[in-house]
Amino acid sequence: MLNIKIISTGKADPATLITSEMLDFRLNKPDGYTLKKSGIIHRRFSPVGETQSWLGAKALSSALSNASLKNTDIDLLISACGVQEQALPTTASAIANQANLPAGTPVFDVNASCLSFLTAMQVAASLLNTNSYKRIAIVSSDQASRGLDWSEPEASLIFGDGAAAAIIERGHSKQGIVAFELKTFTQGRDLCEIRAGGTRMNPNTSLSEKDFLFKMNGKQVMKLAMKHMPAFLENLLKQANTDLKTIDVVIPHQASHLGMAHMIKHLDLEEDKVINIYKTHGNQVSASLPTALHEALTTGRFVSGSRALMLGTAAGISIGGLVLDF
Amino acid sequence: MLNIKIISTGKADPATLITSEMLDFRLNKPDGYTLKKSGIIHRRFSPVGETQSWLGAKALSSALSNASLKNTDIDLLISACGVQEQALPTTASAIANQANLPAGTPVFDVNASCLSFLTAMQVAASLLNTNSYKRIAIVSSDQASRGLDWSEPEASLIFGDGAAAAIIERGHSKQGIVAFELKTFTQGRDLCEIRAGGTRMNPNTSLSEKDFLFKMNGKQVMKLAMKHMPAFLENLLKQANTDLKTIDVVIPHQASHLGMAHMIKHLDLEEDKVINIYKTHGNQVSASLPTALHEALTTGRFVSGSRALMLGTAAGISIGGLVLDF
Repeated sequence: MLNIKIISTGKADPATLITSEMLDFRLNKPDGYTLKKSGIIHRRFSPVGETQSWLGAKALSSALSNASLKNTDIDLLISACGVQEQALPTTASAIANQANLPAGTPVFDVNASCLSFLTAMQVAASLLNTNSYKRIAIVSSDQASRGLDWSEPEASLIFGDGAAAAIIERGHSKQGIVAFELKTFTQGRDLCEIRAGGTRMNPNTSLSEKDFLFKMNGKQVMKLAMKHMPAFLENLLKQANTDLKTIDVVIPHQASHLGMAHMIKHLDLEEDKVINIYKTHGNQVSASLPTALHEALTTGRFVSGSRALMLGTAAGISIGGLVLDF
Repeated sequence: MLNIKIISTGKADPATLITSEMLDFRLNKPDGYTLKKSGIIHRRFSPVGETQSWLGAKALSSALSNASLKNTDIDLLISACGVQEQALPTTASAIANQANLPAGTPVFDVNASCLSFLTAMQVAASLLNTNSYKRIAIVSSDQASRGLDWSEPEASLIFGDGAAAAIIERGHSKQGIVAFELKTFTQGRDLCEIRAGGTRMNPNTSLSEKDFLFKMNGKQVMKLAMKHMPAFLENLLKQANTDLKTIDVVIPHQASHLGMAHMIKHLDLEEDKVINIYKTHGNQVSASLPTALHEALTTGRFVSGSRALMLGTAAGISIGGLVLDF
């Protein structure tokens, strides 16, 4: 077991509430179309001027405040976003700047698409257990709205913007990560992507506006993920020397309503153990997992002495899971 | 000490050799201008079609081959680049795909701009020492040429494309990271940046072609870095319970000829201990540090039983250092 203690979590809601009715209107669709297709009542979008790093800093501030900590009290900031704020420098430096972290506070980015937070937890746990740092903040902030292609309803309906943060320390011997697993299947790389934004597409090579927009083949992503998911979960639980019965709460990435329903069915999960904030948040990319963790902690569904299974899929495509004793 | 053993390193040279004479011609400058301003004889650029991930995979393949390992022999791939290949998914998944890593091999990105490799070494060392993985590949690949603004000679002269990789395992008790430090000073964030490529600038907000190009105020970066560098190094060496005399080889980020000269002078380094590949490589962003490490190892300047100081600055801006016993 890799000891960690979650000191606190926090989240930040972007300013603009987007209901499914508003999307029906924007997309010229009949009443009820978006709700039926997406399963979402509402999600939030960041208005122009509300930046990804500002939103991340707000979530960090909330997490610090929930633990009565100040921004001088963290040793390291890990940004764990799915998409960067800009190509260079790191999103972590932007968040640190917005959060007024003391000059010198070390920061870096960890990116594993929608599994960035989970991966950053494992990285942070390792850094804490090698005494590299004493208290680490992980911040996930994503604004999928910035990359939506309104001519493709499938992707434009399900996403919501958001940010969440967690402060972690090395815990006592019965608290921490019991098992962690990340698997990447790169044959699914182009099923879920934004082609521009780096060295691949830019004015020195070639570029069109469409290359900036999110492209997804949701069905193929789900098919590939579900092919590997049962064996993945079996292996993760085996590594934890446990089974689903000992899991008190399942905290999944909020991929889509169909994705979550498939996962619950195929993995034989008990639905009332599953944190589901999708209807009021949408898929918040990397921010989904920490926002769902925050929900589990603040609603008393993940309490001291209990065990959570965090689980999700990501562009790449990757599958990730973590068994966490609190 | 955080035990690690560098099993092997490798590098990949982009196909096109760009001499300073070629840049004089491109920029309509008199003969000798580029050499005098940049201090570089030649550097390499990747022609169109030679992607960042392909280059990274080639460096990984070289590192694997140098250790007589196959692509099935690594447990985790960390991509440690300064700029991504595309906004989503990770550059790690692109490199893994190009390198034909077995389906399921876990991958993620660590980004700390030009200090990505150093930061990834510390992350990998922690993961190895918590038994999370047994053998980790770190790959840094950057193609600054894709973001050069030819109307700004200062930045367009000094960069070169390149990739390098290292394979590391947990070493014996006298091998590894004696000290590591990363410090970020975000007041220097906008001194070195590419504004587009993420949520900040795109067709759903606002965007111009210039936003994709690298902007740098080299003098201000150097001024800020040099203000903090002496105390930083003193603290790093103190943490390692050592002084400069015990350092056998200094492996710096190859920022610029003036930057390296300033560093040598202000930190009172012995020049003949410093690995300098700048004249034939330029500043390769994240690939500079592992390429210089590869140079130190393959030329016998960093050998079993000796101690290296790896040191550099990065956009953000950050200062990073690592004392490594081999």
